[in-house]
Amino acid sequence: MDPMEALVRSAVQAWTVQVERGEKRFGGLTDEQLLVSVAPGRNRLVYLWGHLIAVSDDMLPLLGLGERSYPELEAVFIRQPDRAMEQVPSQADLQRWWTDVHGRLAAGFATWAAQDWMGKHTRVSDDDFVANPLRNRLSVLLSRTSHMAYHLGQSALAS
Amino acid sequence: MDPMEALVRSAVQAWTVQVERGEKRFGGLTDEQLLVSVAPGRNRLVYLWGHLIAVSDDMLPLLGLGERSYPELEAVFIRQPDRAMEQVPSQADLQRWWTDVHGRLAAGFATWAAQDWMGKHTRVSDDDFVANPLRNRLSVLLSRTSHMAYHLGQSALAS
Repeated sequence: MDPMEALVRSAVQAWTVQVERGEKRFGGLTDEQLLVSVAPGRNRLVYLWGHLIAVSDDMLPLLGLGERSYPELEAVFIRQPDRAMEQVPSQADLQRWWTDVHGRLAAGFATWAAQDWMGKHTRVSDDDFVANPLRNRLSVLLSRTSHMAYHLGQSALAS
Repeated sequence: MDPMEALVRSAVQAWTVQVERGEKRFGGLTDEQLLVSVAPGRNRLVYLWGHLIAVSDDMLPLLGLGERSYPELEAVFIRQPDRAMEQVPSQADLQRWWTDVHGRLAAGFATWAAQDWMGKHTRVSDDDFVANPLRNRLSVLLSRTSHMAYHLGQSALAS
């Protein structure tokens, strides 16, 4: 395998591991189980799941893979804290959104050559990218991988 | 910047971000604050910090960067759950271990060319590595980055 290809595949694999863990954590829950908090007074599972979906959805435009599927999630799961939402989404809806967004990301990644990961993400200017070539698509993937792991660690505390 | 160099630097940066967040989370705590649990009945901060140090220390032999500095931490912070330890280490000791281990890792990484990250880690056989070239040093770094983020997410819940 070409070394650069292997590097990129290692990073995509690290992302995929977290997505699979998210699926395992949230996929089989009931609507009631989603209302459990990870610790007293802290976020509920439903909020963490919605938050992860909203952040992944935003990776689509950030990486140049198209528009978001569910732009309305940003207001509820990123800009607002938990317990501010008027209506809690059902597990079935969240599951559908989760599957759709991560399917779109995986399909997009599958079309890229290793070199494409070194391209700039869409929220950095040409000048800033020249000054800091680490503001590339791969860095976005890596930071979102850590972000998902961070909240999965919290989600594991709810029982 | 050479594309492969940029890829590797992006990954090392993602790791360094987590190490810096760990420093920020645990670095300024008192011995008493380290005894706070992240949720009722869950791990205390002292255990999570020791666990992260023990896992990072083990990266040294795993990546071929030398022997562990503190092999005795494995029994206490990896093989045993929290609250099984006879004596809780002081914040000052944990701080010293944390700084030493992550300093050794950073110094080792600084000596590697991008290509070195594609080499196999020390716990995969030559045959298995040929069959799966993703069992490389970079994959170890990425999985440990996610592992640290996972526990930092939990640590953030303790107040």
